[in-house]
Amino acid sequence: MTDLETLAERVRAAIPLTRHLAFTLLDWHSGQLTLSAPLAPNVNDKGTFFAGSQAALLTLGGWALTTVEGERIAAQVDVVAADSSLQYIAPLHEDAILRVHAAEEELSRFARRLKRRGRARLAVTAELLSPRGEIATRFTAHYLARDLTAPEPVVD
Amino acid sequence: MTDLETLAERVRAAIPLTRHLAFTLLDWHSGQLTLSAPLAPNVNDKGTFFAGSQAALLTLGGWALTTVEGERIAAQVDVVAADSSLQYIAPLHEDAILRVHAAEEELSRFARRLKRRGRARLAVTAELLSPRGEIATRFTAHYLARDLTAPEPVVD
Repeated sequence: MTDLETLAERVRAAIPLTRHLAFTLLDWHSGQLTLSAPLAPNVNDKGTFFAGSQAALLTLGGWALTTVEGERIAAQVDVVAADSSLQYIAPLHEDAILRVHAAEEELSRFARRLKRRGRARLAVTAELLSPRGEIATRFTAHYLARDLTAPEPVVD
Repeated sequence: MTDLETLAERVRAAIPLTRHLAFTLLDWHSGQLTLSAPLAPNVNDKGTFFAGSQAALLTLGGWALTTVEGERIAAQVDVVAADSSLQYIAPLHEDAILRVHAAEEELSRFARRLKRRGRARLAVTAELLSPRGEIATRFTAHYLARDLTAPEPVVD
C-alpha cells in the first residue's frame, strides 16, 4: 500500500518538472484519485490554465493512480504511459481539480493480471475540473505496470 | 510573420511552466517547426524523458506551429488546443527533438479560412525523437486560431 504524501514526495524528488506543476495528491479511494494544482504556476498567455500543464498533470494523475493501484498488489511497481487522448472542452480560469479513475471491472482485471503475470495494462479516465466541478478537459489513457519484485524471465 | 526567438520569448514570459521545459525553437519552414528540449529538467524516475514533459512539449509545439502559420496571415492570432492524442512508442534516454508539421493542403485550407472567416482549425502531427532520429512518441492534435485583428461579431 502506498501513502499519498510519500508517493507525492517520490514523484517530486525523481521528476523535476512535477515540482513546477505544484500538484497535490488529495485523496484516493475505490479506484479514484483526486489531485489539485493551482492556476498561477500553470497559467498561459490568455490567463487560463495552460493546455501543456493540463496534459502533464493528467499524464501524471493516470500514472499515479496506476502506481497506487499496482502497489496494492506488488510492493513496488514500475509504471509507464502507453497512450493518451485529451479533449479540451472549455478554458479554465481557476485552480484545477483532477479526478482520475478506473472502472471496477478494469481494476479487477488489472490486479489479477499483475498478480499472475507480473505485468498488466490499466485503462484510465480523467476529468480536469474547476473548483465548482465544471469540466474543462477530458482524458483517457493506458498505462503499463510491471511488478519490480516479480522474477524476470531469464534471457540468455 | 513571426520571428522564432521572439515567439519563444513571448511563450516563456507568458507561460511560466514552459521555462522549466527548457525548450528551444530551432527552425521553421514549409509547415514544419523543429524544437528541442534537454533530458535533465525533463527526466523521470526511470532516467528517461518524462511522459508529462513530452505531452507538454508536444502540446506547445503544435500551438507554436499554429501560431507561426496563423501569423503569416494575420498580424496577431490567438491559438487554443482543441484535442490531442499521444502514442508512446519507446522510452527516450536522451535529449528530445520535436518535429511538428501540417500537411500542405491542410495549411492552404487553414490560411484560406483564417483570411475569410477570422477563425480556422489546423490539424497538426508531430514526432518526438532522439537526437539520432529514433521515434519515441507520436502526436496528433487540432488547434483553433482566431485572428485578433479581425472585427468581432457584434453581440448585444
